[in-house]
Amino acid sequence: QMFSERFGRGTRTVDLELEAQIDVLRETKLKYEHILRLAQSLTANFYNMVQTQQALGDTFADLSQKSPELQDEFGYNAETQRLLCKNGETLLGAINFFVSSINTLVNKTMEDTLMTIKLYENARLEFDAYRTDLEELSTGPRDAATMMRIEIAQQEYQIHKDKYERLRSDVTIKLKFLEENKVKVMHKQLLLFHNAISAYFAGNQQQLEQTLRQFSVKLKPPGSDKPSWLEEQ
Amino acid sequence: QMFSERFGRGTRTVDLELEAQIDVLRETKLKYEHILRLAQSLTANFYNMVQTQQALGDTFADLSQKSPELQDEFGYNAETQRLLCKNGETLLGAINFFVSSINTLVNKTMEDTLMTIKLYENARLEFDAYRTDLEELSTGPRDAATMMRIEIAQQEYQIHKDKYERLRSDVTIKLKFLEENKVKVMHKQLLLFHNAISAYFAGNQQQLEQTLRQFSVKLKPPGSDKPSWLEEQ
Repeated sequence: QMFSERFGRGTRTVDLELEAQIDVLRETKLKYEHILRLAQSLTANFYNMVQTQQALGDTFADLSQKSPELQDEFGYNAETQRLLCKNGETLLGAINFFVSSINTLVNKTMEDTLMTIKLYENARLEFDAYRTDLEELSTGPRDAATMMRIEIAQQEYQIHKDKYERLRSDVTIKLKFLEENKVKVMHKQLLLFHNAISAYFAGNQQQLEQTLRQFSVKLKPPGSDKPSWLEEQ
Repeated sequence: QMFSERFGRGTRTVDLELEAQIDVLRETKLKYEHILRLAQSLTANFYNMVQTQQALGDTFADLSQKSPELQDEFGYNAETQRLLCKNGETLLGAINFFVSSINTLVNKTMEDTLMTIKLYENARLEFDAYRTDLEELSTGPRDAATMMRIEIAQQEYQIHKDKYERLRSDVTIKLKFLEENKVKVMHKQLLLFHNAISAYFAGNQQQLEQTLRQFSVKLKPPGSDKPSWLEEQ
């Protein structure tokens, strides 16, 4: 059937609305994969920075003790670097949670729907092949043998039509749930990301810790808030 | 002379106070080299982070336009990342200035004094060798030829004694100036480093820019503040 379509023979069953939705999903997945890679880079950059700040804090503290003439200058730098380290580790927790959630959304939830789409697309190819067969037989001469073949072709046609329609329905439902969950998960994660980063880069340790308590699944008492089915996976 | 000292022959002219100061300088240089490496790491980590924030800002802005259902969430994240980028570049300017000043202090100023110390140490070795020669000749029999050799040895002794003392004086003066400059430069740089980092990580853009204006040689009107001789190099 794929060849027939390529060479202009046979026709293609098209669900324009569904195919547009599938295209959007594939595009969204690419974009979210890009965010995921950037967020992973940020985690790595940030982790390295916190390690360097830790080492700087230790070195400044050591020099503060051993340099009477610059004790204060090394001292307050040591203190600042150590505070930044502490807050940095908290922010790393937030970014890691963001990365992990986007990773689940992209590589589990979206991937699962794309697998169903693959099955649907194969079923569509098969269905169109059997449909073309039946159409060709129906336009030919009608002797007893042909009638028999038409009968069988009709059955095959029906089986593959059902399969195609069942999978089309599966895809439609999965796309609907995925869209809902995407918005829910991204709304939450983008808010967490923003609030944690804003609090950290405003030097607001309390607000940063509060943001983590507010968003982190681990710190939330079980059942206090209905989690999305995505998070349950 | 070096061999004589190793094998217990000959004596060593020792200036305990000066040698202690030289040991302290070598130790300080090692420690400041460590700070320099860490500050360079911080620059690299931070530079990478700012690049990632720039890319994240662009991606969030793009997704804000293309995701009506998550327009706000992507929008405020885009704005935050872009603001962080801008402040990040300002902070990078401050850290680069810190790195460049510590680099000059360690690899030019301290290195220059250490070169003089090397010359001084060589002059000390030579002086002790001529001193030992003279002492050995003086304890031997005194015929006309020996008196002649003692005369020459006395001259050599005096020449190398003068050279040794001149270099010892050079080292003493350089160490004094270096100590003054080290304190001056480090006081300024540690204050800049602290104030810039504090302002940045408190999200205080105005204070960050003010700190740069306050400390940066480039932005300072010429002659408004007497620069240390270190900065003039």
